[in-house]
Amino acid sequence: MPADASPRPTIYDVAQRAGVSKSLVSLVLRGSPHVSEARREAVEAAIEELGYRPSRAAAALASQRTRTVGVLIDDFHNPWFVELLAGLRSVLDPAGYTASVADLQLDAASGRNPVDGFLAQHVDALVVAAEPAPGALDGVGAPIVVAGTRELGGAQDADIVAGDDELGARLATEHLIGLGHRRIGHLTGRSGPGAHRRRGYEAAMAAAGLAPAVTGEDGGTSEEDGYAAACDLLDGTAGVTAIVAGNDVMAVGALAALRERGLSVPAEVSLVGHDDSPLAAYRYLQLTSVDGHSREVGAAAARALLSRLDHPDAPPHRELLAPELVVRASTAPAASV
Amino acid sequence: MPADASPRPTIYDVAQRAGVSKSLVSLVLRGSPHVSEARREAVEAAIEELGYRPSRAAAALASQRTRTVGVLIDDFHNPWFVELLAGLRSVLDPAGYTASVADLQLDAASGRNPVDGFLAQHVDALVVAAEPAPGALDGVGAPIVVAGTRELGGAQDADIVAGDDELGARLATEHLIGLGHRRIGHLTGRSGPGAHRRRGYEAAMAAAGLAPAVTGEDGGTSEEDGYAAACDLLDGTAGVTAIVAGNDVMAVGALAALRERGLSVPAEVSLVGHDDSPLAAYRYLQLTSVDGHSREVGAAAARALLSRLDHPDAPPHRELLAPELVVRASTAPAASV
Repeated sequence: MPADASPRPTIYDVAQRAGVSKSLVSLVLRGSPHVSEARREAVEAAIEELGYRPSRAAAALASQRTRTVGVLIDDFHNPWFVELLAGLRSVLDPAGYTASVADLQLDAASGRNPVDGFLAQHVDALVVAAEPAPGALDGVGAPIVVAGTRELGGAQDADIVAGDDELGARLATEHLIGLGHRRIGHLTGRSGPGAHRRRGYEAAMAAAGLAPAVTGEDGGTSEEDGYAAACDLLDGTAGVTAIVAGNDVMAVGALAALRERGLSVPAEVSLVGHDDSPLAAYRYLQLTSVDGHSREVGAAAARALLSRLDHPDAPPHRELLAPELVVRASTAPAASV
Repeated sequence: MPADASPRPTIYDVAQRAGVSKSLVSLVLRGSPHVSEARREAVEAAIEELGYRPSRAAAALASQRTRTVGVLIDDFHNPWFVELLAGLRSVLDPAGYTASVADLQLDAASGRNPVDGFLAQHVDALVVAAEPAPGALDGVGAPIVVAGTRELGGAQDADIVAGDDELGARLATEHLIGLGHRRIGHLTGRSGPGAHRRRGYEAAMAAAGLAPAVTGEDGGTSEEDGYAAACDLLDGTAGVTAIVAGNDVMAVGALAALRERGLSVPAEVSLVGHDDSPLAAYRYLQLTSVDGHSREVGAAAARALLSRLDHPDAPPHRELLAPELVVRASTAPAASV
């Protein structure tokens, strides 16, 4: 506490109080069997009396593990990561690992590389749920699991666990085709998942003999970008009755563009999001969306990571989880013309 | 890298390569002036050759500082924390501190106490942007800054930097009164900021001689809770023409309740959120909201924290930042009856 800050007791204080060496305190903290009962009790009593909290930093030096995992996300503004993180922690927590989260957006603003931050903290491993700049992961001496995306950012031998974005967008597009829509547009953006989703949309359109209409290629993947791409689509392509958005926040941007043009959802235009983020489930939005099973992706990524820590030389693990379409109120049959 | 994982070089490897003691390597890493030029060069050459990355854990044991700050938030689902975090980091990053984020929701599910997690990581300080259970902060031997809320969770001598929630809700209510509204309801929820906001609403209503109508006292502060509280308000109080929601996600819940009853916003009912989160600015929602200047709160909290680390015995710092109403499209003059 600030006002009566007595210095935190250290492992040296514990050793002194117990009348043993610092190394012996370390052995006790690590649960070593090579300690006599009497000395163990003396150390435990000293820990109790001093209110010493075993430091992860000290344990790290002893064991070379900090039991901390750095989780790198793209942007706290886009809530798709929330479930991924929950899944990661459902596996990491019981295994005694703590997750630290950092995002690329904020660090882009400050000019710092979050990967270096994590390495300075001596994390045991990195979970990359983002697309770092090429080279940002070069020379990282810790295991990397890429989670939720297939983009590697230079980590060619990283483990990958992701939702199958291409299949997800195909499911979304086929749903709209099944509802009788023919003029179906797609809002994309510069991102790895965006490219996979675009391919899924294009494949479904081609399989049905329909012409694709894609906008947003030069933009990002925010709500603002979704709005701009939807304006381009609606103003550039006549008779669009359905839209596959690159993600949920882009879909919310599209809702505004549709309302501005007096087009009601789903009566006149159907709309599908992607990620099944908390936004999509809001009663006011009720977006049909592709559930990439982010929680399961997170849990599988954490299992891959624990396995990698135990078996550093195993071949790269690649796992794609099949997504699922969650149908809500933003899609409906095409009006007969 | 997984496939050719050679163990990360340690400070011992550097010492051996340079032909010096581990302590001397530590001195070099800490920039000590008590090292000869020749030995410093030998250590720096060894660091370079081995690709050694100075470990924050090792530096921690040397200096008793990890230069890591634990940031505790309530729930990643509620995006109000995004700007606070940006503000924190705008000050912490240049000072060489890394922020680790954890939330109470996920840890409630796993039964782990995130405060213990941070202490095990030996963070230098905690930023509490959440309401921990009473006692959760007892005995924390690190400085605590409570940010964005005035609730202390037992940390009576913590520093506090927060937006003035009471004033914020008063501004929102006075805005509606100024627009001619008389039947103005309030959606609240169990939370410290919720209580302050409710008091602000009640004070403004009392000052104008209007009767308050509050719902949601027994609920939380999620979108779902906002929907339920709005249903209770609209079904229980006749003629409501304006609503002050406890926060932005609750306001989005209220939008659904209003739409279900055929009430248009703002033509028939005006609605104000609180937090000015990314949601409020979405073109499709355009919520009038109270901007608590979370980025400035975060920056001020970080400055308080750095000051506390330098002056552990200074009296507690208390700072309330004045909020500001951001008027968007969800509020309009009361229709003349």
